[in-house]
Amino acid sequence: MLEVKEVLNVQELLAKAHKPSADAMQLHPFYRGKIEMMPKGCIRSIDDFAIWYTPGVAAPCRAIQKDPQLVYEHTNKWNTVAVISDGSRVLGLGDIGPKAGLPVMEGKALLYKWLAGVDSVPITLDTKDPDEIIRTVLIVQPSFGGINLEDIAQPKCFRVLDTLRERAEIPVWHDDQQGTACVTVAGLLNALKIVRKPISEVRIAFIGSGASNVAITRLCFKTGADPSKCIVVDSQGILHRERHDIFMRRAEFVDKWRLCQTTNREGRKGGIAEALVGADVCVALCTPGPGIIKPEWVAQMASDAIVFACANPVPEIWPWEAAGAGAAIVATGRSDFPNQVNNSLGFPGIFRGTLDVRAKTITDEMCIAAAEALAAAAPDGGQNPECILPTMIEWEVFVQEAVAVGMKAQEQGLARLTLSAEALRKQASAIIQRARKITETMMETGLIAEPPGNE
Amino acid sequence: MLEVKEVLNVQELLAKAHKPSADAMQLHPFYRGKIEMMPKGCIRSIDDFAIWYTPGVAAPCRAIQKDPQLVYEHTNKWNTVAVISDGSRVLGLGDIGPKAGLPVMEGKALLYKWLAGVDSVPITLDTKDPDEIIRTVLIVQPSFGGINLEDIAQPKCFRVLDTLRERAEIPVWHDDQQGTACVTVAGLLNALKIVRKPISEVRIAFIGSGASNVAITRLCFKTGADPSKCIVVDSQGILHRERHDIFMRRAEFVDKWRLCQTTNREGRKGGIAEALVGADVCVALCTPGPGIIKPEWVAQMASDAIVFACANPVPEIWPWEAAGAGAAIVATGRSDFPNQVNNSLGFPGIFRGTLDVRAKTITDEMCIAAAEALAAAAPDGGQNPECILPTMIEWEVFVQEAVAVGMKAQEQGLARLTLSAEALRKQASAIIQRARKITETMMETGLIAEPPGNE
Repeated sequence: MLEVKEVLNVQELLAKAHKPSADAMQLHPFYRGKIEMMPKGCIRSIDDFAIWYTPGVAAPCRAIQKDPQLVYEHTNKWNTVAVISDGSRVLGLGDIGPKAGLPVMEGKALLYKWLAGVDSVPITLDTKDPDEIIRTVLIVQPSFGGINLEDIAQPKCFRVLDTLRERAEIPVWHDDQQGTACVTVAGLLNALKIVRKPISEVRIAFIGSGASNVAITRLCFKTGADPSKCIVVDSQGILHRERHDIFMRRAEFVDKWRLCQTTNREGRKGGIAEALVGADVCVALCTPGPGIIKPEWVAQMASDAIVFACANPVPEIWPWEAAGAGAAIVATGRSDFPNQVNNSLGFPGIFRGTLDVRAKTITDEMCIAAAEALAAAAPDGGQNPECILPTMIEWEVFVQEAVAVGMKAQEQGLARLTLSAEALRKQASAIIQRARKITETMMETGLIAEPPGNE
Repeated sequence: MLEVKEVLNVQELLAKAHKPSADAMQLHPFYRGKIEMMPKGCIRSIDDFAIWYTPGVAAPCRAIQKDPQLVYEHTNKWNTVAVISDGSRVLGLGDIGPKAGLPVMEGKALLYKWLAGVDSVPITLDTKDPDEIIRTVLIVQPSFGGINLEDIAQPKCFRVLDTLRERAEIPVWHDDQQGTACVTVAGLLNALKIVRKPISEVRIAFIGSGASNVAITRLCFKTGADPSKCIVVDSQGILHRERHDIFMRRAEFVDKWRLCQTTNREGRKGGIAEALVGADVCVALCTPGPGIIKPEWVAQMASDAIVFACANPVPEIWPWEAAGAGAAIVATGRSDFPNQVNNSLGFPGIFRGTLDVRAKTITDEMCIAAAEALAAAAPDGGQNPECILPTMIEWEVFVQEAVAVGMKAQEQGLARLTLSAEALRKQASAIIQRARKITETMMETGLIAEPPGNE
């Protein structure tokens, strides 16, 4: 019976996956870009150019020269995030390069604006060298309020992010690390609440140890999970103290070598099957499935097991297989299954809050605050095992995240501005609603044309 | 009498200059930026994100990976120009740095969009090193359809531009060189027509040999002026073959040393006064005046003299002084005098045409084509000595420039697309009118708020 359902669903899923691709191939060349620049200040007549450009503009220039912080008042820096990628690990497509990666970065910019009112500039880089990536980001930072690194391959992404967080004067974020971690932890918080297991007690098996899962381990441990109870699996099997292959590359894989030493106190060895025995939670961000995680392995997990199978486009195990094998809660990366672990729930609200208090950096604590806000925003108080996360449709979610992040930044002494939760909420709401109103207005007036076949 | 008029006008000018500054200090922090990002594709519901982002976006990514030229069809690269500056020579303010320079770059982006429908991203650089500027521009080019260098000090700006024009795969433009040259030549063409002097016959005195005037000399010579009849003056006096100071730095000041050898066949020596004796045209882009060029020197020029006194904010000589001393036509950089030589007449239309035919570079010939289109677009057929150039208010001017530039690029074999003049005209008109309509709609709907005190 499982067999039949799977066959049916593979076909359905392929058909479903085909539709957005076909639409994308039609709509991308129709619009020739999914974002554009617009005037933001009034242009009552060309006389206003004497204010926005020479001679008037010299006055704000001089003011900023005297007090550089005024660049946040006189320009759009305060609200602008650069989405930067070398195209070395784009979606599931691998190293497709900076031109082929551009549609994704533009998509991200679209999401930033529509979901959180953040202005975002896609910049794809014609270099794969981590030092050049670092140098380029440091050189372009004066124009931006933050940097979103995207789709940069590991292991270089770790050093790029760590170095930039240390050396940049604006917040630097790698969405594939921190963003995925934030949303995964949000889902996990609700899932654990439903099965009534405290995070400090659970055994988590992390399947895959790419950039995302390494960041997820860190955030889970900071949220209260006990590393010694947890197990991490990479392509060579379970991480443990005797993993000589990782020891030999420990300078490059710093975090992974740390995980060898801090997780898996019992010194378990083997592969995914062995890692899952007795585990309360499986967090897989590994290889597209199905069949990467077998139902009989899930059956060996603890009772009320939680399975996050987040590989895209196809999860490591079909959700119905995991459920059939006893999992109480199953999440995936897909929007057509319940419990989508969706990055787009994270970065827009997190940057909204970060920018609104002008935070110097984005800490793990700020991510956890965002995760808690996300968890709290799930329908039914997060008690519904098929709705452990909210969806993008609820705009208030992004406001709540922004407020949580902004308040945490202030608490940690990292905010350059002081704002009450109420002030943050008001500002974020106004900015987000305006962004949606702009899109609506452009569509109503035909300035964003009807897509072909939609007239 | 001249004396009295000058005093009056200095006060008036100061008052006039004060108003845009005061407005700028009020409106810049009110709008907190003069440009913003907007969605350009339809967002009918969040389901459309499956087209613009994962999973649908993978299809255009793969298509571009196979054929990199498709990045111009599937993304906004085709219409996006990066405005890049290190802030080392901003307006008349000098080296104010990348943050203080940002309001100018945002202003430029506003002009690009409103005047020519070009999407433009301001990027100010935290480096002064020409090699780092070059490397950064080369690294960020995949996302952009063109690069507008801005406000970079000389002499480094020459090497930066020349190297980038050679090595970049997209057009690179330095507005302070090519842009100023284009508009100046446009004005000069009409001025010479009015006084009925062929350009090949005239003696031009170029006062100042900064980035702008060096570029202007080159474009004038390509337009037909005879270098041997012309004279160039720098801060040390007239350029000639025996200028040992320039010879010693000839590697750095390549163009200037070439001017020493190619201009001033008679070997004249001295300063501005000596340079102007018998000159038909004075093109000054030198030091803010008044008093840099004296009326008695203008009186020594040939009959029907043409004086371009383009220093900002105050011309090298007051226009009424130049006229009083016998100049038939006077132009300045100011909008409150007749005959404003305004860069904003050039770059928007030139990039519109360049982008629309996907030209590989912007040649001097394309600039001259733009200058001729500009000259032809002046009121009264360019026969009015007080209106030798059109103004920004006439949007058709930018269309005409775009068509001229696009046709010239095709003629020179530099265009990747083939379009008829009529097709170019239609496309440029549609894009420019849409940009204005967007601004109008945003203001009408209050999405661009009324400025304070304007309600």
